[in-house]
Amino acid sequence: MKRNFYSDNVSGASPEILQALVAANEGDAPSYGADAYTEGLQARFAELFETPVEVYPVGTGTAANGLAAAIVGQPYGAICTADCSHLHGSECAGAEFWSGGNVRTVPFRTVDGKLDPGDLGAYLDAAATRSAYDVPPRAVSLTQGTEAGTVYTLREVRAITELARARALHVHMDGARLANALARLGCSPAELTWRSGVDVLSFGATKNGALSAEAVVFFDRKLAETMRYRRRRGGHLFSKMRTLSVQLEAYVRDDHWLRNARHANAMAARVREGLASIPGVRFPHPTEINYVLVALPKPVWDGLVAEGYSFSRRGLPHEGIVRIACTFDTPPESVEALIQSAHRHAAAIREGRHLAPATR
Amino acid sequence: MKRNFYSDNVSGASPEILQALVAANEGDAPSYGADAYTEGLQARFAELFETPVEVYPVGTGTAANGLAAAIVGQPYGAICTADCSHLHGSECAGAEFWSGGNVRTVPFRTVDGKLDPGDLGAYLDAAATRSAYDVPPRAVSLTQGTEAGTVYTLREVRAITELARARALHVHMDGARLANALARLGCSPAELTWRSGVDVLSFGATKNGALSAEAVVFFDRKLAETMRYRRRRGGHLFSKMRTLSVQLEAYVRDDHWLRNARHANAMAARVREGLASIPGVRFPHPTEINYVLVALPKPVWDGLVAEGYSFSRRGLPHEGIVRIACTFDTPPESVEALIQSAHRHAAAIREGRHLAPATR
Amino acid sequence: MKRNFYSDNVSGASPEILQALVAANEGDAPSYGADAYTEGLQARFAELFETPVEVYPVGTGTAANGLAAAIVGQPYGAICTADCSHLHGSECAGAEFWSGGNVRTVPFRTVDGKLDPGDLGAYLDAAATRSAYDVPPRAVSLTQGTEAGTVYTLREVRAITELARARALHVHMDGARLANALARLGCSPAELTWRSGVDVLSFGATKNGALSAEAVVFFDRKLAETMRYRRRRGGHLFSKMRTLSVQLEAYVRDDHWLRNARHANAMAARVREGLASIPGVRFPHPTEINYVLVALPKPVWDGLVAEGYSFSRRGLPHEGIVRIACTFDTPPESVEALIQSAHRHAAAIREGRHLAPATR
Amino acid sequence: MKRNFYSDNVSGASPEILQALVAANEGDAPSYGADAYTEGLQARFAELFETPVEVYPVGTGTAANGLAAAIVGQPYGAICTADCSHLHGSECAGAEFWSGGNVRTVPFRTVDGKLDPGDLGAYLDAAATRSAYDVPPRAVSLTQGTEAGTVYTLREVRAITELARARALHVHMDGARLANALARLGCSPAELTWRSGVDVLSFGATKNGALSAEAVVFFDRKLAETMRYRRRRGGHLFSKMRTLSVQLEAYVRDDHWLRNARHANAMAARVREGLASIPGVRFPHPTEINYVLVALPKPVWDGLVAEGYSFSRRGLPHEGIVRIACTFDTPPESVEALIQSAHRHAAAIREGRHLAPATR
Repeated sequence: MKRNFYSDNVSGASPEILQALVAANEGDAPSYGADAYTEGLQARFAELFETPVEVYPVGTGTAANGLAAAIVGQPYGAICTADCSHLHGSECAGAEFWSGGNVRTVPFRTVDGKLDPGDLGAYLDAAATRSAYDVPPRAVSLTQGTEAGTVYTLREVRAITELARARALHVHMDGARLANALARLGCSPAELTWRSGVDVLSFGATKNGALSAEAVVFFDRKLAETMRYRRRRGGHLFSKMRTLSVQLEAYVRDDHWLRNARHANAMAARVREGLASIPGVRFPHPTEINYVLVALPKPVWDGLVAEGYSFSRRGLPHEGIVRIACTFDTPPESVEALIQSAHRHAAAIREGRHLAPATR
Repeated sequence: MKRNFYSDNVSGASPEILQALVAANEGDAPSYGADAYTEGLQARFAELFETPVEVYPVGTGTAANGLAAAIVGQPYGAICTADCSHLHGSECAGAEFWSGGNVRTVPFRTVDGKLDPGDLGAYLDAAATRSAYDVPPRAVSLTQGTEAGTVYTLREVRAITELARARALHVHMDGARLANALARLGCSPAELTWRSGVDVLSFGATKNGALSAEAVVFFDRKLAETMRYRRRRGGHLFSKMRTLSVQLEAYVRDDHWLRNARHANAMAARVREGLASIPGVRFPHPTEINYVLVALPKPVWDGLVAEGYSFSRRGLPHEGIVRIACTFDTPPESVEALIQSAHRHAAAIREGRHLAPATR
Repeated sequence: MKRNFYSDNVSGASPEILQALVAANEGDAPSYGADAYTEGLQARFAELFETPVEVYPVGTGTAANGLAAAIVGQPYGAICTADCSHLHGSECAGAEFWSGGNVRTVPFRTVDGKLDPGDLGAYLDAAATRSAYDVPPRAVSLTQGTEAGTVYTLREVRAITELARARALHVHMDGARLANALARLGCSPAELTWRSGVDVLSFGATKNGALSAEAVVFFDRKLAETMRYRRRRGGHLFSKMRTLSVQLEAYVRDDHWLRNARHANAMAARVREGLASIPGVRFPHPTEINYVLVALPKPVWDGLVAEGYSFSRRGLPHEGIVRIACTFDTPPESVEALIQSAHRHAAAIREGRHLAPATR
Repeated sequence: MKRNFYSDNVSGASPEILQALVAANEGDAPSYGADAYTEGLQARFAELFETPVEVYPVGTGTAANGLAAAIVGQPYGAICTADCSHLHGSECAGAEFWSGGNVRTVPFRTVDGKLDPGDLGAYLDAAATRSAYDVPPRAVSLTQGTEAGTVYTLREVRAITELARARALHVHMDGARLANALARLGCSPAELTWRSGVDVLSFGATKNGALSAEAVVFFDRKLAETMRYRRRRGGHLFSKMRTLSVQLEAYVRDDHWLRNARHANAMAARVREGLASIPGVRFPHPTEINYVLVALPKPVWDGLVAEGYSFSRRGLPHEGIVRIACTFDTPPESVEALIQSAHRHAAAIREGRHLAPATR
């Protein structure tokens, strides 16, 4: 019974992707991306996004974000992003690193994990009148779906990208959970990205079924000019690149990614539904993808942890918020077991049967 | 029949490593390196190297070299290295990148791909008297086995590291082909590295049987202080880290790596032996590992290429030197076929049967 | 009549310093700091600070801060500093630049321009438990006197430096207005700096009488190891270095710097005293050095501007706060004229004689 | 009697420039470049170069070169330059620093201090076919007059810039000795720079009469987009910017710079003429500006040093080459005295009167 809801990367690869990886291992193949899998990826992603693109597989989402940030911020500038974004707070100053100190992230407060166009516009207008005291804005980065378990609607994406476009700023989308957002919104990959004003996309696959494969997708292909050099020196031009490319190919084949995402989203929706009737349970945000952020009564949380459940904490300690991450392979029965356990711990409190929690 | 001798990374993973990878994919595992495979690796490598070490798996050798270079050169300095080293010439100025412009490589001419202690000492002595005009030396990096298909003997390694030690410089070893060097020298991993004065090692596995897994191994563990942050921002802390760690574990299990290397070395020795009797064939360097650098008469080269053989060119165009790379899975019969083809083309020339080559 | 109170760098050099500069221009002198003025500075500053130091003249305070930040943060880390500090907000991400993306500033809210030890300690404690998600703290930077026109008392400095010391963090002091703080506190330069736990000092002179001369002073001389290279590549090793050094020598000769600072502080105190009785005038902070931060009724501000007065705005637009900067050469009669004008505009409002302001 | 021929920056400022500096010190002036001197400089340099330009004063030539290199190499690339160039060998890896590791210099062997178009073209052609192994060329930097005491003719400049232009590379000129080159060639500043294909110029003044003032001049003004931010964070936006700007204004006023340069060049020509008749004296290069590179018989050199003369050594120790640097204020009688001393020492050798040299 799955009890690890800590993150969507505690799962291994899906059987389909693992099988494709094993099959691609046979025989020799040209190295450093000259193989057929990698070359085929360009056409496959062009088809997927209904426009010519440049696709660069990399090993991790942190690399995808760092490379994209260094490029949309080049030669020098600030990237406006959510204060809870992975790029700003979880990558050890990756934008600064990948750019050699030429790019800085500027964090913005968010509502439900999303940038507020009003705040952003005010900042950009003020920055336009400043003298050379601070790094000038050069790009905006938004995360889809968000760290808060929500999605930007198409209208919301466009509200941000139009602000950027009007000031000649580039737009990056961190799509670590792009499939989950697509599954939620029901729109096409093209609609959610370049048709909504996105220039460069961090395309995630690892969290949703791949072993380790992400990509940077350039809709504005002029921005890709330096990418192959940057990826090389960052150690993300894998010598046996077919390993990454075949994962990405299998990921998008026959809607595998969307089916995976729909399942994960549905599991999260069920978790929310199941927990909602527990007194004292509070949801700080809507649950629109595979993450449920939920404030649990402390004894419930303690009880679940004592049973071996694992979550990651969000927000400040006193808020008691955990993130329950569902994945492509979360079994429905595990979700039901989680819900039942939570209810059981809650009932025990009400009935006074609640014991002191085990030490965490 | 294998005809791709372009590089040692045209092969896929060995069956043993692939099988271990598939097995490790089962079930959930903590992410970002908190899994049992990664945690076990510390003890495994300590045993392997007969000393406590810190091991950091990364995705590629370029990442391993760049991270190591940034660290041995920190906070600011030059790294003396061979002009033909991967670090200097094949990683898009990786040392400069990973250090944010704080580290610069200084290339040295080599004999058989190896640094000359005399040249190095003279440079270091001169640098010690210079004022602040140029970047001061801070480290030395040597490649074992070399890009020229040779190995430094233990005595040769120590001649370099003693020069460094006497001037308080750190020593990095690029061990992309460490197994091949060990197989050649017959010494222990400890003898070839820290017992010979090496502080930090790029530990290669991909070229010798892994799918994509390398590691930075710190013998001087104080140097590892910033490593976890640096690896994170560089995108080499893989979320599903077990994927890398299990490859490394399987790689060194039961001497798998050494057996692989011995085979590759033996294949290269046979290639050299087989080609040596062809008139006009010349070997610019000894063949001590899995690379044969050989100057082929042009019609022989052309003839092989016309048959579908693939090599990489080395040196200047007029020298006509190719590198024939053998791997852990190069079949002996493919080597014999290659040798026979080369003899056939050479005979055709002598007998006047040689035709104009197909366009390359 | 002086009407430019915009900054303390709208003044030229003091006659004493200018005269020293002209005298030092005579004849040849070794370049790049091998001249007698520069060499003498080491002993002069050791005497001044009552301890051996290393002194590196540079052209600007931004360079001094950037170099110091790159060094105290090396090889990789975050610098905790006030959100209103010059280092964080006015130097175009200088810490990030000088370190090649290896150092990041982390801004803290302030009270009267000063870091709060409670906030700082809480942050540092939390950071100590974090995994490799964010840049780890490596140093603290405090500004003395502050941008808010206040000074840290010795006790307050030590409260900060002890927090840092307990966690092995380095301490940098931005002493752009060090003389003003010394004049206010009446303590010795040694007491205010290394005896209170400061490792590296940006020593300001330009704002208080020099033409353009600042210095980085290392109390922890081991930290100076890379300084000469860093200064060189940053273009702050001046070929005619005597130009800078002689200014610094003249600046500290016969208490010139302290007399200048006392005058500027006294002028600011008089400005505050003179404005305090105007209804609606509000002072957001104590006035302890040469800066008066004051919220002026809008018609008073408008009236002064219409007369040609110049100030810089502080805080948010609706707060109506200006900074009135007094300098070593602010004439007392100019201060009195400013006060009288402000009173006159205030009276005009009360008497209804106030006219619409000229367009600003 | 002047005996210091070590460099052209052992002199102080010329009386004209010093006087202008003192005059500009009077009264208040807006800081950070909003003063009248700085603002006037734009029009003055546009007139001087007969085209609209953007001029950014900075404190040193190293800063000018580093900023220019980071910009012409942006966002990522290599700068081809002479192996003896200041940018490559004397600025502590300044290009790498100013660009945060995004730009690397590639050194070329020179003839008489000048890049060879054949070598350069061959390199660029080879680079165009390479995959992402090494940093791609992005710019060329040439030094006018050269470190070897020569000048590129207009035709030679154009041979280089046309190679660059044909490959869409930017061209930087290090004009640390621009005035000396202009005085030699007799052409206009426009002809030597933008009309010959130069995009960005490091405009030197310090070596030829200024105290400390250089500038980056952008003929391709689009390249200046990020300059104000880059200069700021590098600490070369001086708060009392009038100090620099007035020096530059006085430098080019009434041909002051050209008269200074003509004098320095003439003194060097006379040094060469005077030394040429000494047996054993050899000149490795033509003497076309204010530098005489000369191989002196060791006893002559020793004799001069014993008298207190100072030169800088060039080339390898066994070559015995010194650089004799003449300046705007080198007195003719000092040159004659130098020549006579050299002859006297040479005669003493011939007559056996030569004594053992004093220890150097």
